[in-house]
Amino acid sequence: MEHALDQLAIVMVHTSHPGNIGSAARAMKTMGIHDLRLVCPTRFHSPETRALASGADDILERAQHFDSLSAAVADCQQVIGTSARSERSLRWPQMHARQCGEFVISQLPQQKVALVFGRERTGLTNEELAHCQSLVHIPMAFDFFSLNIAAAIQIICYECMMATRTPTRAEIHPALQDIREPAATSESLEGFYRHLEQTLVEVRYLDPDNPRLLMRRLRRLFGRTTLSQSEINILRGILSAFQGRKFTSRSS
Amino acid sequence: MEHALDQLAIVMVHTSHPGNIGSAARAMKTMGIHDLRLVCPTRFHSPETRALASGADDILERAQHFDSLSAAVADCQQVIGTSARSERSLRWPQMHARQCGEFVISQLPQQKVALVFGRERTGLTNEELAHCQSLVHIPMAFDFFSLNIAAAIQIICYECMMATRTPTRAEIHPALQDIREPAATSESLEGFYRHLEQTLVEVRYLDPDNPRLLMRRLRRLFGRTTLSQSEINILRGILSAFQGRKFTSRSS
Repeated sequence: MEHALDQLAIVMVHTSHPGNIGSAARAMKTMGIHDLRLVCPTRFHSPETRALASGADDILERAQHFDSLSAAVADCQQVIGTSARSERSLRWPQMHARQCGEFVISQLPQQKVALVFGRERTGLTNEELAHCQSLVHIPMAFDFFSLNIAAAIQIICYECMMATRTPTRAEIHPALQDIREPAATSESLEGFYRHLEQTLVEVRYLDPDNPRLLMRRLRRLFGRTTLSQSEINILRGILSAFQGRKFTSRSS
Repeated sequence: MEHALDQLAIVMVHTSHPGNIGSAARAMKTMGIHDLRLVCPTRFHSPETRALASGADDILERAQHFDSLSAAVADCQQVIGTSARSERSLRWPQMHARQCGEFVISQLPQQKVALVFGRERTGLTNEELAHCQSLVHIPMAFDFFSLNIAAAIQIICYECMMATRTPTRAEIHPALQDIREPAATSESLEGFYRHLEQTLVEVRYLDPDNPRLLMRRLRRLFGRTTLSQSEINILRGILSAFQGRKFTSRSS
């Protein structure tokens, strides 16, 4: 039980208030989650951080720092973004907190899972959301009000821990159940997206000066499928075949 | 729904840090709970209180002050104490947080319910516990660690709010449920697979005389995603772009 959530990382992106990092560390520790990753916090070391961590110093000390979200989640197969609203213009697969806990537990420990929390006021940017395969939101009584970020982390961590206790694993959709192969890492997935984008530009299906939402839509599409590494190899093989053809025809 | 928790009061006993009162107010408001009662807080008014309440000023302003726990819960039929441990020497009826949410909702609105939170470090005294009919604790990964009081209030309020939500929506995996666009028809999907296969043959990635399992693997990959019609249009657009390029290079 104490190792059930070892493969779960909490990622805090551009956190403004160091106290929130301390509170988050405490919230994590209460629920047996230890992997804290920080992407460009405004400030990290402050007396408040340690005071609010209140005994979760080990989590603060082991916290890893990253320059970008993509680097922070590079080794993760499932990246779940948090959203204050249950609605976004582009529709990612969405879960509420309880479903998220069940989903996370269904993925662990074979998959490494990242839960990503954005800025205190503005959350995650659309670019950051593009790195996420799904979104979680915490149901609230008022849509126009918001949770403190450490409180949000507390609830999500609590739901993950609670999901380790329920013996009856919730209905996992067969679409995800039947993936016997482990999912590709986020790094590998990003490599595929770059390859895809480059090929689409070469074939002039994608105009780099007016990309519209094309890549985001494709990310959403492939993000839903939880690609395995061998599937990424196939897809990149296809892209290379298209590129190879092009190079052949040029050289002829 | 917004009035479901009107008869629920949160009682904070001898709270030391005014910031915790502010955070508690915010936690309550997110979950639609408004009745905050304070028993002899060490300090109530502080800049921190208001800063951490972050928009829940109405709850702070309407908070009632009492000299004793018995006065604070005088009008309540159900008084539930919170305990950091799941065990006490004197054995009260005990619930964990989720059971507590369900219990509270089963009592409202006919009964007025109080949830009582003790001192940051030492919780409720035995004398105060004597005013409670039952105890609630929040499950944690480590029994020797403790939740911040505002975090505890956040979780309990969240569980009460969750209990008001009728378990309507059938268990559909989140990866699929929030795709508002209807899935493409099977006919349309088959059209896409034919187009894909034809393109792969043209680009010589697929050998029709030795197709192996390629198409089956791709079907499995895309089959998992539940493609919408507009996504099929995008994918076929991409395939046509590749074919268009090929035809161009042939004609040149």
